[in-house]
Amino acid sequence: MTGIVYVNGQFLDRDEAVVSVDDRGFVFGDGVYEVTRSRDGVLLEVDRHVRRLERSLAGLDLAYSPAELPAISLRLLRDNGLARGEATVYWQVTRGAASPRTHQFPPAGTPVTVYASASPFTALHEKRASGVGTILLPDQRWARCDLKTVNLLPNVLAKQKAIVAGAHEAILQRDGVVMEGAATNVFGVIDGIIRTHPRTNYILPGITREVVLELANELGMAVREEPMLVDDMARLSECFLTGTTNDVMPVVTIDGRLVGDGRPGPIAGRLYSALIARWRVGD
Amino acid sequence: MTGIVYVNGQFLDRDEAVVSVDDRGFVFGDGVYEVTRSRDGVLLEVDRHVRRLERSLAGLDLAYSPAELPAISLRLLRDNGLARGEATVYWQVTRGAASPRTHQFPPAGTPVTVYASASPFTALHEKRASGVGTILLPDQRWARCDLKTVNLLPNVLAKQKAIVAGAHEAILQRDGVVMEGAATNVFGVIDGIIRTHPRTNYILPGITREVVLELANELGMAVREEPMLVDDMARLSECFLTGTTNDVMPVVTIDGRLVGDGRPGPIAGRLYSALIARWRVGD
Repeated sequence: MTGIVYVNGQFLDRDEAVVSVDDRGFVFGDGVYEVTRSRDGVLLEVDRHVRRLERSLAGLDLAYSPAELPAISLRLLRDNGLARGEATVYWQVTRGAASPRTHQFPPAGTPVTVYASASPFTALHEKRASGVGTILLPDQRWARCDLKTVNLLPNVLAKQKAIVAGAHEAILQRDGVVMEGAATNVFGVIDGIIRTHPRTNYILPGITREVVLELANELGMAVREEPMLVDDMARLSECFLTGTTNDVMPVVTIDGRLVGDGRPGPIAGRLYSALIARWRVGD
Repeated sequence: MTGIVYVNGQFLDRDEAVVSVDDRGFVFGDGVYEVTRSRDGVLLEVDRHVRRLERSLAGLDLAYSPAELPAISLRLLRDNGLARGEATVYWQVTRGAASPRTHQFPPAGTPVTVYASASPFTALHEKRASGVGTILLPDQRWARCDLKTVNLLPNVLAKQKAIVAGAHEAILQRDGVVMEGAATNVFGVIDGIIRTHPRTNYILPGITREVVLELANELGMAVREEPMLVDDMARLSECFLTGTTNDVMPVVTIDGRLVGDGRPGPIAGRLYSALIARWRVGD
């Protein structure tokens, strides 16, 4: 892709956008990120994304204030012809370039690396209409899945396995407990009650997850932040994924077995409609 | 640091050595690495490092043959004035630059990124003479610690905690079992028997660990690849770390408590001497 991206104070052509081989993002994955959505130049849920980035930065003792990122994002949208329609904006902050390479943090005052880019986005309407397939995999990730870091290798490998299997997403289970997807949160409906894993160090506090929980409460739906067991999954009447690019995405198969009647369910549909209404985004 | 490094077929000034912001090493930590040692222009244990890199590459389905890296390394040593004395040579291979960003692998044929650099090295003789302090931390890493990937954030955070505590290394325990250090393997001596965690998916198959096990056997020492429990540590008569830059490093304190009599022990000393003799490296 071409376009204008932001790196360390400069707006420049993507082809010229580079970081040092000494960047700790490159050699250690020592950084954090966010993916935000925009609609007609408006960043959706931007305050929540900024707050979550602040939380991830604090979790890694990274000294950076993301207050400038919304304004940088708006300029990226404008400069890339994305001020109308839908787009995603990516933010990444790493612990900067430091040499010689040492595991421990570089000297105080080493500047962080800040990277941001904007990309066109098309919502996954066809997938949402049909529902998606998923596979169930062991969760191989570390113990701080609540921090949105670029140490994403287990997520990459899980997602790749899903794609190879012809599925949309991998659902991760840890010791028989359903945690979340490789790049989404997971909700299920059992006995009419919506369930999703509670916020712990083992799941990402998804922005869409949080909004969907609020919407479900506003709609008077029965919701519990309680983990589902893998053994509970045969009893699911519905299952859906949430995430910044997935919105609310119905799951119709898990490892090839139908969820409910194998069609997108009404609760996912109502929550998706409520999400869209919140953003005043045309479907 | 200045000097000449290698990136994707080119030898160039470190200041000009960059990778795209779309490099999957930078945005996902989607890559593997090795740190090798050289002495007077000779790469130590180079075949083992190449084999381990091949294993890590295969573990991530990364298509690259590292056969060229030893020759690249020798040129880096020469061009950086490191053909005499001691140095380290760093190798890293990532899944290359790909846009748009997707968790799943980029299209087949996307070129990998290959980066190599050489740095002067001074063996840690003073620390070895006095022995080092360590702290014990929970192992927060993922389930594939046997792959030497650049998803190193838990290692970075553990090592930083050790440095802040005035220690040399963090020893990681998982559910009460001693696994390894943040950037080393860990050995202990209990009742005259050398013990270290067996090779599983939860520890790195250290090159120095492997060589030290062979040397211990050759010297007729009693060795068991059996895990130590945290509860066993009060019974340690010796403890030591192994690694490419640590060689054999005596541990004299763990969380401030003395190991044995608080001085480097004879078994670590004999194994270090044997290692040095193997490499014909002057002490």
